[in-house]
Amino acid sequence: MRKRLGASPMIIPMPAVLVATYDDDGTPNAMTAAWASACCHTPPCVGVAVRDSRRTFTNIRARRAFTINIASAEMAVDVDYVGIVSGHQVKDKLARAGLATERAAVVDAPLIERCPISIECRLVHALPLGTHTWFVGEVVEVQADERVVTAEGIVDIDALDPLVYATSAGEYRGIGRALGRAYRIGKGRA
Amino acid sequence: MRKRLGASPMIIPMPAVLVATYDDDGTPNAMTAAWASACCHTPPCVGVAVRDSRRTFTNIRARRAFTINIASAEMAVDVDYVGIVSGHQVKDKLARAGLATERAAVVDAPLIERCPISIECRLVHALPLGTHTWFVGEVVEVQADERVVTAEGIVDIDALDPLVYATSAGEYRGIGRALGRAYRIGKGRA
Repeated sequence: MRKRLGASPMIIPMPAVLVATYDDDGTPNAMTAAWASACCHTPPCVGVAVRDSRRTFTNIRARRAFTINIASAEMAVDVDYVGIVSGHQVKDKLARAGLATERAAVVDAPLIERCPISIECRLVHALPLGTHTWFVGEVVEVQADERVVTAEGIVDIDALDPLVYATSAGEYRGIGRALGRAYRIGKGRA
Repeated sequence: MRKRLGASPMIIPMPAVLVATYDDDGTPNAMTAAWASACCHTPPCVGVAVRDSRRTFTNIRARRAFTINIASAEMAVDVDYVGIVSGHQVKDKLARAGLATERAAVVDAPLIERCPISIECRLVHALPLGTHTWFVGEVVEVQADERVVTAEGIVDIDALDPLVYATSAGEYRGIGRALGRAYRIGKGRA
């Protein structure tokens, strides 16, 4: 039996990443985002939805750059803090959370050092949709802590231990049990 | 020590959903997508990246509608099959996979019955990015199997048991351990 839940922008699960930018005076800032996705293979692009009232909204437009930082499960409290507190109210929220930054290798945005993976993006599109704008960044570099990368250059998902956001329930989860390899387990049916 | 992995459209983790549409003759079709996200609160919108060569690309543009269907972990093999086989080559791939459909309540697209949650979308934007187009749909209805919804109308993430896509490793995972509630666990720091 199906229930109608009404219109809401639901995808399950979501990631929980930190989008980092520089304020106009060069202070590193970040927001927590679950509304983010890869969106093109060539050129390689990712997108993130940002509410217009956010400082990140202003920052991305001004510097035309941002980074997406993948957090590990042990950072759940920090990620949540960055999502609760506005950069408008707490100027140095990253410093208060003990999240050190460094300058990205290529783009004009900071990386969050404790995040094992940082994706450097150059703004290529800003699509206004209503309360949110969908910012598309061309990925120009991905940096990863060597501890989460195998010898073959693959991200070891258990070493990374990424946050998973359980939409609707509003809960952070870890990554779960292995269910099989993509482009492989379905071959038996084809 | 950080490694540079080069430019790739990496977000970790991703969902693994089925995007369902009607072919020009009314045959239900679907593709597997990991590149999907919520992208606006009001109006409620979700987006999905579709390669231009896909039948889904033609179908979304023709009917200006699609559904996003959230699969449970027990459907991993089916989800992978739908991702491997093209609707151009196998006309009735959903039927072959044993995935029955029904007409969506509001939009001109099918729902996949075995998926516990289906999100009905009306196309509002198509943003060409290169190999892929980012289709934005306004969500007009969400239908969920009552077995995955609590009395409060919240999706029970353990009952749903959604697929999680581990990017880079290319592996399907289940949902993992609880790490805390969003907008709550970070309050202690603020």
